[in-house]
Amino acid sequence: MGKTSDKKQKYKVIGTRPIRHDGADKVTGRAIYGSDLRLSGTVFGRILRSPHAHAKIKHIDTSAAEKLPGVLAVATAHDFPDLKDKIANLGEGSVNLAHLGANALAHGKALYKGHAVAAVAAVNQHVAEEAANLIKVDYEVLPSVTWVLDAMRDDAPLLHEDVRTNSMGKKGDKPTNIATHIHFETGDVDQAFAAADLVIEREFRTASVHQGYIEPHVCTALWNQDGHLTLWTSTQGSFTARAQTAELLQIPVSQVTVVPCEIGGGFGGKIAVYLEPVAAMLSRKCGRPVKMVMTREEVFEGTGPTPGSFMRVKLAATKEGKLTAGLAWLAYDAGAFPGGMIGPGCMCVFSCYEFPNARVDGYDVLDNKPKTQAYRAPGATQAAFACESVIDEMAERLGICPIEFRLKNAAKEGTRRVDGPTYPRIGFIETLEAAKNSDHWKTPIGGPNRGRGIASGYWFNIGLKSCAAANVNPDGTVSLIEGSTDIGGTRTSIAMQLAETLGISAEAVKPRVADTDGVGYTDVTGGSRTTFATGMAAHEVGLDIQKQMAERAAHLWECDPSKVECVDGAYKSNGKSMTFTELAGKLGETGGPVVGRASVDPQGSSNGFGTHIVDVEVDPETAKVTILRYTAIQDVGTAIHPSYVEGQMQGGAVQGIGWALNEEYVFDDKGRMQNPNYLDYRMPTALDVPMIDTIIVEVFNPAHPYGVRGVGETPIVAPPAAIANAIYHATGQRMGELPISPPRLWAAMAKK
Amino acid sequence: MGKTSDKKQKYKVIGTRPIRHDGADKVTGRAIYGSDLRLSGTVFGRILRSPHAHAKIKHIDTSAAEKLPGVLAVATAHDFPDLKDKIANLGEGSVNLAHLGANALAHGKALYKGHAVAAVAAVNQHVAEEAANLIKVDYEVLPSVTWVLDAMRDDAPLLHEDVRTNSMGKKGDKPTNIATHIHFETGDVDQAFAAADLVIEREFRTASVHQGYIEPHVCTALWNQDGHLTLWTSTQGSFTARAQTAELLQIPVSQVTVVPCEIGGGFGGKIAVYLEPVAAMLSRKCGRPVKMVMTREEVFEGTGPTPGSFMRVKLAATKEGKLTAGLAWLAYDAGAFPGGMIGPGCMCVFSCYEFPNARVDGYDVLDNKPKTQAYRAPGATQAAFACESVIDEMAERLGICPIEFRLKNAAKEGTRRVDGPTYPRIGFIETLEAAKNSDHWKTPIGGPNRGRGIASGYWFNIGLKSCAAANVNPDGTVSLIEGSTDIGGTRTSIAMQLAETLGISAEAVKPRVADTDGVGYTDVTGGSRTTFATGMAAHEVGLDIQKQMAERAAHLWECDPSKVECVDGAYKSNGKSMTFTELAGKLGETGGPVVGRASVDPQGSSNGFGTHIVDVEVDPETAKVTILRYTAIQDVGTAIHPSYVEGQMQGGAVQGIGWALNEEYVFDDKGRMQNPNYLDYRMPTALDVPMIDTIIVEVFNPAHPYGVRGVGETPIVAPPAAIANAIYHATGQRMGELPISPPRLWAAMAKK
Repeated sequence: MGKTSDKKQKYKVIGTRPIRHDGADKVTGRAIYGSDLRLSGTVFGRILRSPHAHAKIKHIDTSAAEKLPGVLAVATAHDFPDLKDKIANLGEGSVNLAHLGANALAHGKALYKGHAVAAVAAVNQHVAEEAANLIKVDYEVLPSVTWVLDAMRDDAPLLHEDVRTNSMGKKGDKPTNIATHIHFETGDVDQAFAAADLVIEREFRTASVHQGYIEPHVCTALWNQDGHLTLWTSTQGSFTARAQTAELLQIPVSQVTVVPCEIGGGFGGKIAVYLEPVAAMLSRKCGRPVKMVMTREEVFEGTGPTPGSFMRVKLAATKEGKLTAGLAWLAYDAGAFPGGMIGPGCMCVFSCYEFPNARVDGYDVLDNKPKTQAYRAPGATQAAFACESVIDEMAERLGICPIEFRLKNAAKEGTRRVDGPTYPRIGFIETLEAAKNSDHWKTPIGGPNRGRGIASGYWFNIGLKSCAAANVNPDGTVSLIEGSTDIGGTRTSIAMQLAETLGISAEAVKPRVADTDGVGYTDVTGGSRTTFATGMAAHEVGLDIQKQMAERAAHLWECDPSKVECVDGAYKSNGKSMTFTELAGKLGETGGPVVGRASVDPQGSSNGFGTHIVDVEVDPETAKVTILRYTAIQDVGTAIHPSYVEGQMQGGAVQGIGWALNEEYVFDDKGRMQNPNYLDYRMPTALDVPMIDTIIVEVFNPAHPYGVRGVGETPIVAPPAAIANAIYHATGQRMGELPISPPRLWAAMAKK
Repeated sequence: MGKTSDKKQKYKVIGTRPIRHDGADKVTGRAIYGSDLRLSGTVFGRILRSPHAHAKIKHIDTSAAEKLPGVLAVATAHDFPDLKDKIANLGEGSVNLAHLGANALAHGKALYKGHAVAAVAAVNQHVAEEAANLIKVDYEVLPSVTWVLDAMRDDAPLLHEDVRTNSMGKKGDKPTNIATHIHFETGDVDQAFAAADLVIEREFRTASVHQGYIEPHVCTALWNQDGHLTLWTSTQGSFTARAQTAELLQIPVSQVTVVPCEIGGGFGGKIAVYLEPVAAMLSRKCGRPVKMVMTREEVFEGTGPTPGSFMRVKLAATKEGKLTAGLAWLAYDAGAFPGGMIGPGCMCVFSCYEFPNARVDGYDVLDNKPKTQAYRAPGATQAAFACESVIDEMAERLGICPIEFRLKNAAKEGTRRVDGPTYPRIGFIETLEAAKNSDHWKTPIGGPNRGRGIASGYWFNIGLKSCAAANVNPDGTVSLIEGSTDIGGTRTSIAMQLAETLGISAEAVKPRVADTDGVGYTDVTGGSRTTFATGMAAHEVGLDIQKQMAERAAHLWECDPSKVECVDGAYKSNGKSMTFTELAGKLGETGGPVVGRASVDPQGSSNGFGTHIVDVEVDPETAKVTILRYTAIQDVGTAIHPSYVEGQMQGGAVQGIGWALNEEYVFDDKGRMQNPNYLDYRMPTALDVPMIDTIIVEVFNPAHPYGVRGVGETPIVAPPAAIANAIYHATGQRMGELPISPPRLWAAMAKK
């Protein structure tokens, strides 16, 4: 159990730990996941995928599949509207629809092993699978590339003839795999390096890793005879899935309803649509509901991991330990289509510190891997691994405690981030102070082959749009309707904010995640925005209700509404007082029901900082790394539900441990993933990690009524760097490549 | 096709006839009715019903049923909380919970043949049925009574020991079957009768008739392990079902979610709960979803028909044709529990005319029939049959055209109804004028054995509470969320009002009927309130959205919102103009989504009047009555969707024809219904009635923004009287008893 600060005592509901509203449904198996759904008349879809990492599709012959008894529909990219040069803003910025569509079903070329090429719908899964195998695809196999630096070479196999480098708004003039070049610069970097007392430059490599959500992608589509499409799907954003699917099919969004089922994990990987447009097309063709479920292999090979990367980081400091310059050169693979995670990588690489002089160059690089997707603080973990490794080395070389070194240079209110924005009140220093004062840091590690590492991490956290509505029930409860799919307990963290505003208990709010026809537009559950932005909407709904309730009290007391005060959930005027519940029971006689609604669109970042401490022991014979102790410290603004905050911090740390030590996509020389299953793609289990201790730091965020900052992503940023630093202190070996798996670490130790 | 007036040209959407939003789902079988639902793990419930019309339940032995393999739960009234003396306001006035509960499962006594006594849940319907038959009930059979006048006698079998007559607020002092006595009086009635030129007094009798909805009652209940109960049911009011069920189980309303399935007809009969609390209890006992579906026999014997009645009406007039006095004595059976339809009967009996002197006495009388329920203008049809028959006779005796006679005495703005209220602007005279000017009235009937009848009818129509919310989509459509279950096309009639307010097309509004957690409290779809009150809510939602859209336009144009006008759905300021759709596409960049909400609680009546003309031919040998031509004329205020208005008028007329000519509960001397099936309970089919012509009269209702009056109930009020009058003019025989079935009419004709 983590410690929480004392600040929350000013709240009655916020900071407490009520049982989650969807708990009983989830533990008893009543919650409806996509896989539980079976509409009357449902048939089953199956996708045929490319066996080649890069191949021209010369011809697809579906005739044998179509003739198989039990087959109801076959679809290829040719069934979809032409989306060439179509760009749409789908909630989180511009999307190239032709690329999005071609990722769902290959158009002319297969760009990675596992790329969807054709799809069938049939009376059952077995017939569908058999039919998929009867589709004959005539491929012309092309050379492939899966390592980012190889893909950047002039002679690399080219994925897209039409891609030109977009370099800060200017388009390049020749075909390339470098889709984007980002450049940030501040101060005089070269002069600063020349003048520095200490300069360290290092290179880093990371492998592609997958979000590893336990629930595979699953979708049922029903294209109704009136042209209306309903999708039941596992998605992080029902409105985003609606917008993407509508655009790919070129139908109005109001012709699509997305019903978000419960979701068995997403971590960023369930924002892009894969099955949805395909299932929709199959349903349109056969007039039946079409259900599609991915296998684990399809999830690994056909959906988006986070980028593999090559990074070079060079830092300069004075001998007193003041950072004077930073240089980062980051190349992240985008996978098969542009739009990888290089942007946030560049935004975050130097964001923990004050750099008077800095230069960041980032490259979004196409290669023959599945298109990369967001994975929890996308792009930031790689960058922090690089920067925080060099920071650690620099502190050591300067003989300064790594926490003190960070404190000397820590970003604070007024610090300007290298990519532009100036920080408002942030809590990075407070996390470092908490680390310094922690029992973990103060306790000697002891024993041979052991080392302690520390690293910090930053994630900006987003705002975006959220709507909510709420209805007051006569028994004093409030039904809350929200559009944020609930991945990590947000029904409760949002309901608690409404409860706090109204002065009622968390249990008295009944949250409901509505489908896209049942609530106003709400952006994805991602970017650590949900408790922040949808919580803000819930607060505003509360204010809307409170105003109306005060009017009802005024009506009963025959006074002016301005004379009614609301104190701790009770309505008071001139010595008279009624609780919310009492007043709720009188709505019928004072004008009817009370309904509240809100729509918010908060701008800017809520700026999450974390500092992680980890103790490891490295087996000198096998190079197996054991995590002995782990403490995650984070400024969360205000912890609405501390247990869920701790859970996010623990979950992020554990995913980071997997990434640091074991997880990676292993490709053969033909670009084929060799380990697309949970036996060979090694994620940590409960046996592999100790209890993750947490220290919640609460530095109130003035941009939110309850001071909330985003929580869920920051905790995955620091772990690989912290672990690499700990391994160095255990072994004397600086590891520049993730994962630091036993064979790789053993080889490095043996070489030394 | 009916004619519609020219007034609606002031509207763009209102008065047009768009295709209904749920049309495709309904004609393709995709719409989900209660019977379509099958949750995972569903088991099936079955009710054991009393074979006796009146019997003490001495003991129920469920042991054999419990032992039958496949049986999961058995329930009797003993499983429910004690509700003695508990009264609750459940939306439409006070309800005695002990009675409501005992009607769902008999408590101590079976009060009618078919009364539910016990229930079982089992793995399938067959085991459930077998188990129900294994329940042994030890009855002490008591004498029974099914005719209202018999039930009023001092020596009648007494249904409830604890019932005392409630006479205008005062309680009687001895047990009785007369639950309520209503008395209205105005002027000096006796003096007026003594002074009159013409006095006519007649007696009338009507049989119990059923609403005859095509879909039997059906419900699935899931009592979740967190104590939350979800009901999927066919109901006219999801919130009413929620409130009733919660009260019967004595749990908070917020612990119950009612999901209204599509409904295959209700007509007032699907407001009270029958299966819902029983299925809930079985689910609680067995932990599984429990589904229950009534057979047709159960619907007839176990749910509520409209009252049978005995009525005496006495009218006085001057020889010039001015009504001077009215006296009505109405006894309606309530069935097994108090709370029949006598109230509205008394309110409506004299409501078409100005009576300077009038007295109305009404009696709610218990007898051994299923508890009566609302059936389309409940209580008014019986009363109009009595009053309008005497009016017709009076007009004939005075030698005045029956339309002119009605015109001389017609209620109008300022007329005081006998029960109190004074009419605002109403359109009764306009319906009479329309009748007089109709092609039907002007066309001679011709031929032997033929007669033309006319009658008028009144229904007050209710207001009550409705909520709505709406979300603007980026494609310029609006998702509308409402709580009114859609029986007769109200998704469309409500959506059209929102469309009109926003200046967009009916198709651009996407209506959704939400469950009780998805929308604010909304009263039943009944009382002809839905298009009126929920339409008013939709209008207010539109105003709320319009205000916000104007603010967005002002934001874009950098002007004050007060400078933005909304004209015909376009937003204009200072020469600039944007359509709603254009502006909807820019919400993302002007502050985020726009959400509207409204809650309304209109008071008072919207006062519907109709006048029906019917031509009949009576076969002199068999006394079979053939409807030759039928015209229904009605003031609907404003016809939102004229096709649905016509449909309501036609439907009401056809149900009235069935009631007039054929439909009746036939009881044997033991109180057992002899015809509980559609073969023997004879409803009109398409072969039995001609096309019903309609004339829509539109007298704007100033109490509604679009002038709407309730429509659905008024058209069933006049038909039996109009047909009886027509039969008189065809045969010379005044028929005082419904139905005027061939045997009854033949006997009367033969006697004469």
